[in-house]
Amino acid sequence: MSAPLAGAAGGDRLSATDRAFLGRSVELGRKGWGRVHPNPMVGAVVARAGVTLAEAHHAEFGGPHAEAAALAELGERARGATLYSSLEPCAHTGKTPPCAEAIRAAGIERVVYWAAEPGAVEGGGGAWLRRRGVRVAGPCGDVAGWAAENPVFFHAARSERPFVALKLAVSLDGRIAPRGGRRVWLTGPEARSEVHRLRAGFDAILVGTRTWKADDPMLTARGAVTPRVPPRPVLLDRRGEAVRDLRALRGDGAGRAIVVTAPGAAGRVEERLGGRGEVVAVPAGTRGLELAALMEALAGRGVGSVFCEGGGVLAASLLAEGLADRLYLFVAPVVVGGGGVPAFPVTPGDRPEDVATLMQGWQPRLDPVRFGDDTLIVLDRGG
Amino acid sequence: MSAPLAGAAGGDRLSATDRAFLGRSVELGRKGWGRVHPNPMVGAVVARAGVTLAEAHHAEFGGPHAEAAALAELGERARGATLYSSLEPCAHTGKTPPCAEAIRAAGIERVVYWAAEPGAVEGGGGAWLRRRGVRVAGPCGDVAGWAAENPVFFHAARSERPFVALKLAVSLDGRIAPRGGRRVWLTGPEARSEVHRLRAGFDAILVGTRTWKADDPMLTARGAVTPRVPPRPVLLDRRGEAVRDLRALRGDGAGRAIVVTAPGAAGRVEERLGGRGEVVAVPAGTRGLELAALMEALAGRGVGSVFCEGGGVLAASLLAEGLADRLYLFVAPVVVGGGGVPAFPVTPGDRPEDVATLMQGWQPRLDPVRFGDDTLIVLDRGG
Repeated sequence: MSAPLAGAAGGDRLSATDRAFLGRSVELGRKGWGRVHPNPMVGAVVARAGVTLAEAHHAEFGGPHAEAAALAELGERARGATLYSSLEPCAHTGKTPPCAEAIRAAGIERVVYWAAEPGAVEGGGGAWLRRRGVRVAGPCGDVAGWAAENPVFFHAARSERPFVALKLAVSLDGRIAPRGGRRVWLTGPEARSEVHRLRAGFDAILVGTRTWKADDPMLTARGAVTPRVPPRPVLLDRRGEAVRDLRALRGDGAGRAIVVTAPGAAGRVEERLGGRGEVVAVPAGTRGLELAALMEALAGRGVGSVFCEGGGVLAASLLAEGLADRLYLFVAPVVVGGGGVPAFPVTPGDRPEDVATLMQGWQPRLDPVRFGDDTLIVLDRGG
Repeated sequence: MSAPLAGAAGGDRLSATDRAFLGRSVELGRKGWGRVHPNPMVGAVVARAGVTLAEAHHAEFGGPHAEAAALAELGERARGATLYSSLEPCAHTGKTPPCAEAIRAAGIERVVYWAAEPGAVEGGGGAWLRRRGVRVAGPCGDVAGWAAENPVFFHAARSERPFVALKLAVSLDGRIAPRGGRRVWLTGPEARSEVHRLRAGFDAILVGTRTWKADDPMLTARGAVTPRVPPRPVLLDRRGEAVRDLRALRGDGAGRAIVVTAPGAAGRVEERLGGRGEVVAVPAGTRGLELAALMEALAGRGVGSVFCEGGGVLAASLLAEGLADRLYLFVAPVVVGGGGVPAFPVTPGDRPEDVATLMQGWQPRLDPVRFGDDTLIVLDRGG
């Protein structure tokens, strides 16, 4: 999905072979999507003279780390080899013993790693191994690149607020639905499968009032990856209109839903839902529920990442308030026409300078990917 | 740029190694962009037991074909090897002797090729080699995939009309310019360099009246590839307003410009331009110059491919009239706002069913590519 090492600062001292194995370790790490968070996704390769001896990835939260798993396969055969890892080997004992010790014990001669463990410096596995005479190259690249691969993990290291990703499926003319907003699939089945796979990597799936009223979505991850912890559906419901029978509240295979309403409506909603879903009150302003307060409330419930699936107004508000970190934009090869619902609603009252700066600093750091007839562009917020 | 062999029909009998070498031959062929047309871009690899012995591509119109060039490097060492080519080896004597003979003479044991030479069947190099006991696998994939790699070449095999590609640089909200249409760069320098590279592969660069009046563009290919034959600028000028001093008419490094006007204005324009550029008269309807007649006139002047760079109205007309074959869509990570100029202008009078079918059958057959902060999506017309 990505060429994370291309042009990355600090990669100069690496050979083409090093870079290829490091790229492979990143690729392997991705297999942990939906299964390892809140841990990072990590892959590792052990190689000698350009030949792969073992490959592994962190496959399950609480299970072996990638480096340890790769070494475990090899035993004595690892002696003198090079270990490549997409993340700095850990030097602490957590759920598993530290990888740095396993690397040293296995007789690995050289370690090449990509991303620095956030907060580690002298306490990290890189420094620990260097002090013990192992040749170490890393970290390579920069935190923006690392965060593109492990967005939730690196976000959590510097922010209390959940990581927020917006998903939008748009036509070539930037619309998310035809006139009147009736439900249509702009994108094809491959793109929709990818959305289900993406959902599996988030703690919560957020939708605005109009979206759940129009579509009554299940908000479950029904794709190639079964999430270790099913994401919790989060329904915005300022006016307190949610009913027990909504699919997202029934909980078939989903995490327990959260219905977010204004303080004045909370009691009424709670009563109506009768224990189906958790009701959360958040202050409401003139333009709707206060989104920063919403994020705080979600963080307080252990939600570290939010996948927002619409609608356009909610997405635009999150963008405008600086609460969005990533945009998954699926571009469908269709034209909806001028009457369609815009993906980026800008009202006549918005000042042009605000519009122009809406996406300032946003960049694609992952390569775009084709899913059937649709194209996924992933944009990450700068800084 | 592409994964042309993925999922391609007919590729089942190929091993992963075969597919990798065939993919490499396609990749090599691309190096001929801007230098070989109207010939196809072709690359070739000679390999034995999975190891590359030689690589080559068709580098220059009139110069050696890829297969012959790869074999010429090897001499006797080619004996018993496998030759991979992105196009069926030729069996005819054109500007160079037939590749099929060279392949047989070199003692190649097996030939794997991707695209079928249009029109060849029994007369093609594949059949010629099979009859002489060489093991041959090919063609693989389908004409839609081959045409995605060599669009002008495969288009020419089935149509008299020039191949027409539209280039649009759009914001996330589907705009090509802010309100009022003033000139801004939505895309960054990497995308603009790519546009210059793309121009080198076309016979002509077409712009509508408003575009040349607003921008006075040079319409030359000033990128990484110097075109063998500079593309001819084509300016639409229904009302006969072009003047001698337009940059595109001055001809610095460009092909001789064509100014297209209505029959009633042709004499006047010709006089005013005084030999700078060629004046071509084309019937005009109520909505502008007749575009089908324009294409016929261009074909009559040897123009086999047209790169249309705007504006939006011209692009929309070409799409609506079924005269466009490819869309190069550069998506910039900016939002322009509701007052901006739409990339796909749909007027209130347009019937919704016409809008919905505007892009019907269009598909991305090449992978999307990131250029700096922008993403290029290439869409090809179906059928």
